[in-house]
Amino acid sequence: MSGDAQSVVTAAVLVIGDEILSGRTKDRNIGTIAEHLTSIGIALREVRVVGDVEEEIVAALNALRARYDYVFTTGGIGPTHDDITADSIAKAFGVGIGVHPEAEKLMAAYYAGRGMELTPARLRMARVPEGGRLIGNRVTGAPGFCVGNVIVMAGVPEIMRAMLMAISPELRTGAKVHSVTLPVDRPESEIADVFAAHQRRYPGVAMGSYPLLRNGEAATDLVLRSSDGAMLREAVEGLRKALAL
Amino acid sequence: MSGDAQSVVTAAVLVIGDEILSGRTKDRNIGTIAEHLTSIGIALREVRVVGDVEEEIVAALNALRARYDYVFTTGGIGPTHDDITADSIAKAFGVGIGVHPEAEKLMAAYYAGRGMELTPARLRMARVPEGGRLIGNRVTGAPGFCVGNVIVMAGVPEIMRAMLMAISPELRTGAKVHSVTLPVDRPESEIADVFAAHQRRYPGVAMGSYPLLRNGEAATDLVLRSSDGAMLREAVEGLRKALAL
Repeated sequence: MSGDAQSVVTAAVLVIGDEILSGRTKDRNIGTIAEHLTSIGIALREVRVVGDVEEEIVAALNALRARYDYVFTTGGIGPTHDDITADSIAKAFGVGIGVHPEAEKLMAAYYAGRGMELTPARLRMARVPEGGRLIGNRVTGAPGFCVGNVIVMAGVPEIMRAMLMAISPELRTGAKVHSVTLPVDRPESEIADVFAAHQRRYPGVAMGSYPLLRNGEAATDLVLRSSDGAMLREAVEGLRKALAL
Repeated sequence: MSGDAQSVVTAAVLVIGDEILSGRTKDRNIGTIAEHLTSIGIALREVRVVGDVEEEIVAALNALRARYDYVFTTGGIGPTHDDITADSIAKAFGVGIGVHPEAEKLMAAYYAGRGMELTPARLRMARVPEGGRLIGNRVTGAPGFCVGNVIVMAGVPEIMRAMLMAISPELRTGAKVHSVTLPVDRPESEIADVFAAHQRRYPGVAMGSYPLLRNGEAATDLVLRSSDGAMLREAVEGLRKALAL
């Protein structure tokens, strides 16, 4: 992981799967990826969810990969007919797809170790677009892969996490964004004016206000974020004073 | 709610908020909206998450509202400076924005009932793009609103839900998609061939396969979905026989 304190490295997430759009499965990957990328200095800028439809996946992928440094996809890399992510990604890049020899070896070893056969259906999970590099995971034999700036991961949260951890050391990272949360026991409408004035004073610090109920009362979390630690501390101290916290 | 058993009514969700992209807040609205729309006969086709950046909101909104029958947005309609959804939506539609008289009345009554003042910051929540119609909610005084085919809701899940329920009777709906889940105690790679053959036999039934661990063993949920109840039942029975379930 090579970090550059000055640069900004951007990313998007593309979640692929009818089951998310039907509401049957509740996505748990977006939050995990968002939190992890923030922690290593990659700025997540956009998320899209599309169904298991080739032209939708291709269009979303091509829009996102042109625009951001990285695109992380989740879902659709299993052994069944509805898993069309690998083929769609090959199509988006305009390259062929075939069984990756190293992936086949990994999977043969995995199934042999369990006394199981590497059937054609299982071998389907070793298909990788031309030029793809594998991403191992500690949970199953089936790898994810990278093609260009696109990182293709499983949809099952435990496997997705293992792949995300496996690929992270290879990612280019930029300035880490530090964040401070100030809990305020007042509704946000009461502190909105002071908060807006403070944002104008520190344009280099992103300030967000999040309403919530605390002990049954309307309260607010104020979140200040910046890659400039000194400026962030100054802005936080100033806001504490301005709100008498 | 007017349903037409033959037609398909489509929708997208646009989640607006830096806090989702930073991972600080985990979205809980996408799953709620997805499940609800499916249940009333609206097909959710796409979800996007963008930050609190006017040009991003405008671009995403214009792409989605042109493409789908409805767009549901969540987030960014509070009283603080980082709440820019209403202004961004006015900009996307090319219309002005101002305090909506009915919204002002609602909010004045709400705050008066609590012995609180309707300050300028609070009145900010009564600003609605020209032509907008209000969506009340039972939780707070601040309404959501509709402009054209765009339904603008709060980000706080409890308030979002109240607004979604309030607007639902006015939505045009289409064919309801029925869904049957067949739990299978085998890994999906073992049933992939039979399942794919079954999908080819029933192209009008969408069939998805979802791997999971059941009692520590690799198992699969097969999900069959169709708006044609008779065909769905036939496909489910056929699949049970083919897999000896």
